[in-house]
Amino acid sequence: MTDKGILIVVSGFSGAGKGTLMRKLLETYDNYALSVSMTTRKPREGERHGVEYFFASKEEFEKKIAEDKLIEYACYCDNYYGTPREYVEEQLEAGKDVILEIEIQGALKIKERFPDSLLLFVTPPNAKELERRLVGRGTETPEVIAKRLSRASEESEGIEAYDYIVVNDDLEECVKQLHSIVINAHYAPNRCAEFINQIREELKEFSKGAN
Amino acid sequence: MTDKGILIVVSGFSGAGKGTLMRKLLETYDNYALSVSMTTRKPREGERHGVEYFFASKEEFEKKIAEDKLIEYACYCDNYYGTPREYVEEQLEAGKDVILEIEIQGALKIKERFPDSLLLFVTPPNAKELERRLVGRGTETPEVIAKRLSRASEESEGIEAYDYIVVNDDLEECVKQLHSIVINAHYAPNRCAEFINQIREELKEFSKGAN
Repeated sequence: MTDKGILIVVSGFSGAGKGTLMRKLLETYDNYALSVSMTTRKPREGERHGVEYFFASKEEFEKKIAEDKLIEYACYCDNYYGTPREYVEEQLEAGKDVILEIEIQGALKIKERFPDSLLLFVTPPNAKELERRLVGRGTETPEVIAKRLSRASEESEGIEAYDYIVVNDDLEECVKQLHSIVINAHYAPNRCAEFINQIREELKEFSKGAN
Repeated sequence: MTDKGILIVVSGFSGAGKGTLMRKLLETYDNYALSVSMTTRKPREGERHGVEYFFASKEEFEKKIAEDKLIEYACYCDNYYGTPREYVEEQLEAGKDVILEIEIQGALKIKERFPDSLLLFVTPPNAKELERRLVGRGTETPEVIAKRLSRASEESEGIEAYDYIVVNDDLEECVKQLHSIVINAHYAPNRCAEFINQIREELKEFSKGAN
């Protein structure tokens, strides 16, 4: 329906499976582009610059802020995270639905600046499953897991700010649901101004002709 | 996700194919119940009392209004049209997604009284196609067609009040799209209060345990 892409914000509890979900979504459908965030946190094992994140120093990051080259940024666990503007705007213009995987502070800023953005919150079917997944990763210390669960509890207070909840129980089903939410979102009137105006003009002409 | 059904309002231009679409939707999926409107207009050829409409006299209709037994009503082309309350409430409680096929005045009243209702506007892909379908019916006089086109032009001014536009080009595709909009709507946070509260409570317990 719309020619322009939708700016999609995907948030969710750490351990909800956002990463796998995004990977699968991008593999399966070709209407998406994934925005790569910039961060000042250290790369984890296996993370590559420009793929998982653009890694930057605090000074570099603050220069980007000063030059208004980030559409949002936030501080989380003592590190900056932000979204470079240029790539997002290029992809939206090209008709791609652009996914930002960011946490709630950033999501709210995006909604404020881009009211037509679509906010999705990914959650496992229940908290027990979230804990199981965090423990199952085997990469985090008990302190980190405790911190993430406590963080999840805080984050859950913000769910109402999102447009849809995406329950990640079965991966395949979840990818399909997410995709159908995005496809449908193209048919919300605020994203179809061109179509609406055209049909209005045509109807005006026809009812003139008919009278 | 939600246990309770969604109140769905379907409007659209006369000739957009709402009737066929609703019939197909109800045949294909079992989560829907179609509300039967009450009207004071004369039955058309083949219309049955209690199926297409409950036909009533002006006096009977006004008694229903006085007794608050209609969740909305409106006057259109000198006839009353309204939605009997009892059936709708029963079906929603039973978990059915209840469809009201009503025009814009009624749709706006429903949204006001039931903010969690879902408003869908059905349209053909363009105005030319709408005219073609109205003429193709062969049941209407040129004056009636002209009146309907003029009415459609007025109605098009209200599209922004709806949550989604449903383009009825290919019937099968359209039924699928409509159904997926409804399924997704069950995952909007305002319709998932129970799920959200439960996961919040669980997370609170876990983060207590973890600290």
